[in-house]
Amino acid sequence: MSRTLPPLRYSRLVGALPAVVPFIPPEALERANGRPIKVRIGANENSFGPSPKAIAAMADATKRIQWYCDPEGFVLRRAIAERHNVSRDNIALGAGADDLLGLLVRAFMNPGDRVATSFGAYPTFLFHVNGFGGKPVATPYREDRNDPEALATLARRRKAKLVYLSNPDNPTGSWVSAESQLRLIDRLPPGAILVLDEAYADFAPPEALPTIDPEDPRIIRLRTFSKAHGMAGARIGYAIAPAETVRAFDKIRHHFGVNRLAQEGALASLQDPDYIAGVIRKVEEGRQDYKRIAERLGLKTLPSATNFVAIDVGSADRAKAAMNRLLSEEDIFVRMPGVAPLNRCIRVTVGTPADRKAFGAALERVLTRIDAGA
Amino acid sequence: MSRTLPPLRYSRLVGALPAVVPFIPPEALERANGRPIKVRIGANENSFGPSPKAIAAMADATKRIQWYCDPEGFVLRRAIAERHNVSRDNIALGAGADDLLGLLVRAFMNPGDRVATSFGAYPTFLFHVNGFGGKPVATPYREDRNDPEALATLARRRKAKLVYLSNPDNPTGSWVSAESQLRLIDRLPPGAILVLDEAYADFAPPEALPTIDPEDPRIIRLRTFSKAHGMAGARIGYAIAPAETVRAFDKIRHHFGVNRLAQEGALASLQDPDYIAGVIRKVEEGRQDYKRIAERLGLKTLPSATNFVAIDVGSADRAKAAMNRLLSEEDIFVRMPGVAPLNRCIRVTVGTPADRKAFGAALERVLTRIDAGA
Repeated sequence: MSRTLPPLRYSRLVGALPAVVPFIPPEALERANGRPIKVRIGANENSFGPSPKAIAAMADATKRIQWYCDPEGFVLRRAIAERHNVSRDNIALGAGADDLLGLLVRAFMNPGDRVATSFGAYPTFLFHVNGFGGKPVATPYREDRNDPEALATLARRRKAKLVYLSNPDNPTGSWVSAESQLRLIDRLPPGAILVLDEAYADFAPPEALPTIDPEDPRIIRLRTFSKAHGMAGARIGYAIAPAETVRAFDKIRHHFGVNRLAQEGALASLQDPDYIAGVIRKVEEGRQDYKRIAERLGLKTLPSATNFVAIDVGSADRAKAAMNRLLSEEDIFVRMPGVAPLNRCIRVTVGTPADRKAFGAALERVLTRIDAGA
Repeated sequence: MSRTLPPLRYSRLVGALPAVVPFIPPEALERANGRPIKVRIGANENSFGPSPKAIAAMADATKRIQWYCDPEGFVLRRAIAERHNVSRDNIALGAGADDLLGLLVRAFMNPGDRVATSFGAYPTFLFHVNGFGGKPVATPYREDRNDPEALATLARRRKAKLVYLSNPDNPTGSWVSAESQLRLIDRLPPGAILVLDEAYADFAPPEALPTIDPEDPRIIRLRTFSKAHGMAGARIGYAIAPAETVRAFDKIRHHFGVNRLAQEGALASLQDPDYIAGVIRKVEEGRQDYKRIAERLGLKTLPSATNFVAIDVGSADRAKAAMNRLLSEEDIFVRMPGVAPLNRCIRVTVGTPADRKAFGAALERVLTRIDAGA
């Protein structure tokens, strides 16, 4: 341009943020590689797909796509509430759990407030905490699991306003008992809220899921249709929270933000529990398969109650090399935990039997080449 | 609960917000009425529906719905950029223009900053301004149109950080010339940004749409697929903005928030310009139809370059009564502007020919009853 124009002046919060994104997507890896990924087992998606009833409902909803969705999500929230035996007023919809994480950070955290997590927790949660000016503080994993005792101690010591626990956990796949979660809740600092991210709850044993009064002001539970329900691309999740919190979200949320296809698809998926149970069985088979693949290569896996398995390949260098070479040499997309000591693992989503077979053979080749210095 | 639990403590910003929502949806009106709306012409939706190619693309995308979308929106942003003859780096996707309004408020406005609009501007924009602690200031419409001169003067006097103009305008349907927009831009206070909401641009005459360097730091333009493209329920829109602003949005946006169906559907819709041109012709016919309907009843319409028409029914009381009775007695959903002097109008979206016929007959009945005191 010929004229001199003034520089852009951002808000204080956004101006201070670094240029980071929570995840590099497989599509960007494909563009960098110049060819498609063959086996997509890196983002904990559902390789078995959603219920055919959900697909049919979404395809049918395209005929009504010119109409804005119901911003109150009345019908879907009622169905979700029935499933959990709570009131519709205790259910908040979001465009994925990510959306709800942003809302709850904004609703409860002031800039400068501390937020306690396990070291290496879900990057998108930390993205929102940083984005609204919070101060994350973290406690290490203990024996490759979340440590609720240490998390409570940290939260009390640093007077955390929010405490985040994913259970079952990503990226380890581990879980902690309902009892230890209830102890954590009772040890929270005054006025603090536990964000209980239960994205993988559908895969978990019952003893991992506490019974919680939805009106308990100390807890917000998050669920998603992205995992067991196989609707990650549709963007829909929900919170179970006190009615007052649901109303507080109404003050700030994108009222028309949960699209019509997602709402109608989610409702149909809820009405097909047999299909979801079948997905959960297939995922369980897949986890056993990964265990066998790892053992054949002399490797251990971390116990998992999710749709992925962390495979311990021995060191951070070896894990990083394996992840990178699976992509560049085998066109297989996996991810790995970012922080020690979990970064000795690669994290592999349960794929189809064909995906798993391809992965097992490729991992063997890649590790052989790494160990040969090739 | 038997125990006494502590009260919820919200963030300062959210704690100070009133419990308001930007719009009461037709679905809530139906639930209150206890029966369905027959003619839905209140939310400026596209009664003619999206391109069959977009519907087919969305239905096909349901087969890939278990995979997260491309958070970089690479393919769609490239297609949008080509359409506007700008770089892909100048295009930001959002889950509807509403999403982008929230992002730009957050990216540029500090709590306490002033934001200048016309009095009665888009409620969702003001919802975001209030939600992030901004201070709206407003200038009246002038002869039922936005007044860019007065808006510039107000913005300079109150040192506004953001200035919002919808062009063509909602709720009037009016438009201002490209020249007057460029004069407004040149008169902005130092460091201020013009938010040019062009949701209805597809319906506008060329002289209403200025040519703007996308790297001009003083302007962010917003477009949507909700209106001419008929995809309101899918949630997708975009901003044309300096590349630096697009990167600033990356620091705070929901990276996976624009769902896969919307992205694939929008791409297909862009590739069907003949269909969109047909929608625009049908909407033009519908506006003429509403003009005739109004004239038959002795009423005037405001000139419109959008997919709706404001019909002047003479007074705020008569407009409110007409809107309410159209709903309660005729099951027809329309809206009306909230503030004087525009609140002497009802705002009616262009429906199908059958919708318009039903509306014309119902409006005549309702006004007759109102005037008879019945």
